[in-house]
Amino acid sequence: MYNFKNDYSEGAHPNILTKLIETNFVQQLGYGEDEYGIEAKEVLKEKIKNPHATIHFLSCGTQTNLIVISFLLRVHEAVISAKTGHISANETGSIEATGHKVIAVETEDGKLRPSDIQNALKEYALKPHVVKPRMVYISNSTEIGTIYTKSELEDLSSCCKTNNLLLYLDGARLGHALMAQNNDMTLADIARLTDIFYIGGTKNGALLGEAVIFSTPELAFDFEYVLKQKGAMLAKGRLLAIQFLELFRHDLYFDLAKHANTMAMKIVDAVQSKGFSFLTNSTTNQIFPILPKDVIQKLNENYLFYVWKEIDDDHAAIRLITSWATDEKNVDAFIADLRSL
Amino acid sequence: MYNFKNDYSEGAHPNILTKLIETNFVQQLGYGEDEYGIEAKEVLKEKIKNPHATIHFLSCGTQTNLIVISFLLRVHEAVISAKTGHISANETGSIEATGHKVIAVETEDGKLRPSDIQNALKEYALKPHVVKPRMVYISNSTEIGTIYTKSELEDLSSCCKTNNLLLYLDGARLGHALMAQNNDMTLADIARLTDIFYIGGTKNGALLGEAVIFSTPELAFDFEYVLKQKGAMLAKGRLLAIQFLELFRHDLYFDLAKHANTMAMKIVDAVQSKGFSFLTNSTTNQIFPILPKDVIQKLNENYLFYVWKEIDDDHAAIRLITSWATDEKNVDAFIADLRSL
Amino acid sequence: MYNFKNDYSEGAHPNILTKLIETNFVQQLGYGEDEYGIEAKEVLKEKIKNPHATIHFLSCGTQTNLIVISFLLRVHEAVISAKTGHISANETGSIEATGHKVIAVETEDGKLRPSDIQNALKEYALKPHVVKPRMVYISNSTEIGTIYTKSELEDLSSCCKTNNLLLYLDGARLGHALMAQNNDMTLADIARLTDIFYIGGTKNGALLGEAVIFSTPELAFDFEYVLKQKGAMLAKGRLLAIQFLELFRHDLYFDLAKHANTMAMKIVDAVQSKGFSFLTNSTTNQIFPILPKDVIQKLNENYLFYVWKEIDDDHAAIRLITSWATDEKNVDAFIADLRSL
Amino acid sequence: MYNFKNDYSEGAHPNILTKLIETNFVQQLGYGEDEYGIEAKEVLKEKIKNPHATIHFLSCGTQTNLIVISFLLRVHEAVISAKTGHISANETGSIEATGHKVIAVETEDGKLRPSDIQNALKEYALKPHVVKPRMVYISNSTEIGTIYTKSELEDLSSCCKTNNLLLYLDGARLGHALMAQNNDMTLADIARLTDIFYIGGTKNGALLGEAVIFSTPELAFDFEYVLKQKGAMLAKGRLLAIQFLELFRHDLYFDLAKHANTMAMKIVDAVQSKGFSFLTNSTTNQIFPILPKDVIQKLNENYLFYVWKEIDDDHAAIRLITSWATDEKNVDAFIADLRSL
Repeated sequence: MYNFKNDYSEGAHPNILTKLIETNFVQQLGYGEDEYGIEAKEVLKEKIKNPHATIHFLSCGTQTNLIVISFLLRVHEAVISAKTGHISANETGSIEATGHKVIAVETEDGKLRPSDIQNALKEYALKPHVVKPRMVYISNSTEIGTIYTKSELEDLSSCCKTNNLLLYLDGARLGHALMAQNNDMTLADIARLTDIFYIGGTKNGALLGEAVIFSTPELAFDFEYVLKQKGAMLAKGRLLAIQFLELFRHDLYFDLAKHANTMAMKIVDAVQSKGFSFLTNSTTNQIFPILPKDVIQKLNENYLFYVWKEIDDDHAAIRLITSWATDEKNVDAFIADLRSL
Repeated sequence: MYNFKNDYSEGAHPNILTKLIETNFVQQLGYGEDEYGIEAKEVLKEKIKNPHATIHFLSCGTQTNLIVISFLLRVHEAVISAKTGHISANETGSIEATGHKVIAVETEDGKLRPSDIQNALKEYALKPHVVKPRMVYISNSTEIGTIYTKSELEDLSSCCKTNNLLLYLDGARLGHALMAQNNDMTLADIARLTDIFYIGGTKNGALLGEAVIFSTPELAFDFEYVLKQKGAMLAKGRLLAIQFLELFRHDLYFDLAKHANTMAMKIVDAVQSKGFSFLTNSTTNQIFPILPKDVIQKLNENYLFYVWKEIDDDHAAIRLITSWATDEKNVDAFIADLRSL
Repeated sequence: MYNFKNDYSEGAHPNILTKLIETNFVQQLGYGEDEYGIEAKEVLKEKIKNPHATIHFLSCGTQTNLIVISFLLRVHEAVISAKTGHISANETGSIEATGHKVIAVETEDGKLRPSDIQNALKEYALKPHVVKPRMVYISNSTEIGTIYTKSELEDLSSCCKTNNLLLYLDGARLGHALMAQNNDMTLADIARLTDIFYIGGTKNGALLGEAVIFSTPELAFDFEYVLKQKGAMLAKGRLLAIQFLELFRHDLYFDLAKHANTMAMKIVDAVQSKGFSFLTNSTTNQIFPILPKDVIQKLNENYLFYVWKEIDDDHAAIRLITSWATDEKNVDAFIADLRSL
Repeated sequence: MYNFKNDYSEGAHPNILTKLIETNFVQQLGYGEDEYGIEAKEVLKEKIKNPHATIHFLSCGTQTNLIVISFLLRVHEAVISAKTGHISANETGSIEATGHKVIAVETEDGKLRPSDIQNALKEYALKPHVVKPRMVYISNSTEIGTIYTKSELEDLSSCCKTNNLLLYLDGARLGHALMAQNNDMTLADIARLTDIFYIGGTKNGALLGEAVIFSTPELAFDFEYVLKQKGAMLAKGRLLAIQFLELFRHDLYFDLAKHANTMAMKIVDAVQSKGFSFLTNSTTNQIFPILPKDVIQKLNENYLFYVWKEIDDDHAAIRLITSWATDEKNVDAFIADLRSL
């Protein structure tokens, strides 16, 4: 059985493990004060073309989201998210657990647009009987595989500025977004157009780790306190730093994401050539083919994946995820099996 | 400069890294459902002689403490801790941040006794104008290197049962406690005498990781929800599981702790033979010699450590920490330097 | 200008003020230990035919909701509410501020039905990546004036029991519900079919005050702690107790609600006889006539009310609220004005 | 039995009740938008000589403290309080329940001094492993009856400014402090020397109510949101406003406090002339005579009061509280009884 369920079924890219062994006995200061962290942050600041950014390494996406959001919001403030957004749909009320409402907005493609923001602001206008929207949370790529174009992100960024809203981008799969064929942004664009964003390591080659980036030091002032308070400050911060250093110093991060996308697009082509359609217009490593149920059943004999959504009595959408670790042989086998059905 | 500041200056024990590489490409389910976790839990249940225990792997001590405590307490309930306890002194108000008061008790040696509990219960008796004590938090070894004897833990455990208090033991350095020369407990004793405890990996050979153990499944029911909600559920849970498997299947964990203790005791002997005394009666890997300030200054030329407490104009206590990774050559060099001063 | 904006524009029913003066200098214990409270609770227990109920008096609806809900839910648990429910739409994220997600369900008439609950349970099934539904919150009368029938509440109650969900009823306007012409329930039915409910005083003749009723003492155990902790325990608890005593010992509460409903229904008849329709099918003291905008404008010259919802270019729904204090003369004048337009 | 247990055993000053009746049927806007509130705030701004202050009316002290503190602190920030401070000793962990640590400082007389602040800052210096002190909470009069002098408050205020700490004064018994014989401050001094303070109504003649005053509008910006969110915004805000209007427009508040103090000082004189001493040096309406236990027992036959603290086998300190409602006849009777023993 080959597993297409997610992009975290394997460990880490071998370069990372090699680097961990290589540096294993070099003594370092704890709690994020290690030399690898300093170096990794320098590399990242260069990539985003912002020498003033403040960068911290955290362990996972839910942790990053809840810490960033609860750190930046005051008690009466709320965050706007697509209903499909990870903080709304998949993180066990983690934001609410820190005291803040998530204003969930229905979208067609998992992406927020200025009109969504305007509607939310209108719905939450009756001060003080409703919460005060103060932040917009987006994911790129989204939870359903779509990506933002530069002009879309510019519009959203501008709308946020006008309305005094912080723009926070969840980049759990940012590599996959930036390596998509229809992408027209760079990492520096992302940094320029958001107030805070994070680069996900876990789903693109690291054992664990997300790099959260504040565009200005003012915004990040005192952030260390909440890292510690929320249990996110690893004694051996080197573990996170070494991985980001390895992923970014020679752009391994982008190579890995590109591979994942390429594998997914190979399957997309095969699905389309069989005449099947998709639930979402994904150009990244999560795809949602709509298949006849008997086809799904057959595929399930050799491949693990989620059945995502019932479409009609005879069809359902499945979710296939590829990753940096996906072996092309398995993709080819899957395609062959699909063709044969 | 050799670093005696803490027990997390290096990476992980090489066996762990080897195992990570060996298993790297074996596909596993995410979020703690991997096979290594099942196996590691079986090994641990055997060690603690409790087949009914529920075990979860978390990333670090602060995270473990805040999740366990906030999960088990209701909104009006509080936890009693020694003032030196990690949750009281070193975790940035993490427990209060989840809504619960930490009732901090002054102690002489970092350990809580039934009389401390009785006093706290008396002080917090005026229902409903004060919080309701519901849990006792202790550390073994303590933050100042001391350990509980079996009879002390039995007394405390019995006092907690009588007063309907949960007993939770922070085992960030549990290996060092159990390997101390004056220890008379086993891991099974710890499990039997507490309601919840955790075994610390980070400070004894792991890259990161703590294993939290609930004595009964009832107590742990629904715990997975808060793991996810508080950002502690790693997508690649295998990372934590593999490390605990490696640490415990051949008792590597205890060997490593023993080494750390042995290194510390070597220094203790040398300090004593020079006629110096100690701030605390530590028998584990954290020791606090009281030295003349000029000696401290000299030692500081070659060794990193914290000056812990001013004693008088001429003396201060320093903190030295050894670990699984402490090279005996450096200990010997330190002792030689100390002797020569 | 006569104010139809809400049912809290005036002070208290004169009987209450008289009673406050009469008892003013009788010394009483503080913090809810006064004799009036004991007496008022006895009266209420008789009305609900449950001698085992536990009753507490709080100051306002938002306070009551947030305290009851945060007291009964564990950290990972959530409450299901209609999207129009007060906790979802009008209380500034007060539930989220205590750490809990409100699962908001779209409804046609402000009422939840078993099918709504089933759908929510299905949507929140993927343990542990989503919160765990543990409570159902309903209002009777609802925020849009509708009421539950006995069979509806029985079905909901039974659905909650089957699914291990607590059923909590917000009775801010419970008097109006029970005095509606289409009502077939008693206060005792409400008590029997819910786990917790509150009787609203503020909107039906009291200066302030809500009586929260737990069906069993077990459910209410330790509730005093959170009353104090959340700032809801008045030093002069007598203020709340005296009001409920006065409202219930001779059923003044029901008389007042009946008057409010009668006033509203008079307007309903007039609106209908003019051929206008309503936004909701209200039988209580909140009504939502849909009127031509020029009629609204004219009425607004003499009466205060909210324009609730744009219907089309020429029409809007307005909200009119009557109360125990509504003078029939003003209702008649309003009707005359409406007829003349 | 006459009750000296507290200053909230009776209802409200008759003028207040008269005013409630007088205004009862005047329609007003809800949620603090009533005309009485506007007028009461104008009166208070004049008294404190600060036209720029922002004022809100809340229901009780615990509510006021938790809302002000949680509104002003960020998640990692803490408040410093005397250990006897109400938020530390008597409010059921209400501040911790909002996520913030209370740094409790031992004092001799219930008052904080700059040296206490300096020590706390030193103890909480190890960023980010400890919380960040950001506010100082004091009470005047204190929980043990003592008061601040102008020079003491000036020193503390200046210390707070220097260290970027907000100074918040709990004035549950501010009237009693300002009417004490050894007081040298005015309400305007209090306003000038603090960032936020509240004037307590509940313990000085009101049914309920506290007026919280922010020295600058910037500090209070958005405060309405949390009033609503924490359940403190009464629909009939008029109830609070009318009381403060009545208490302050002709300085009734100060007259009432003066009466309470005078009654207490009469007892103080009697106690002293019998040769007994006091636990604290109170000059306000809470006094703590140390009496032989048999005397206490005898007095307890006719008077209710708390035995506060065991002094030795034969003596204990009791707490006597007088109020605006204390009848001088009962004070005289108490003194006569004391003398006769």
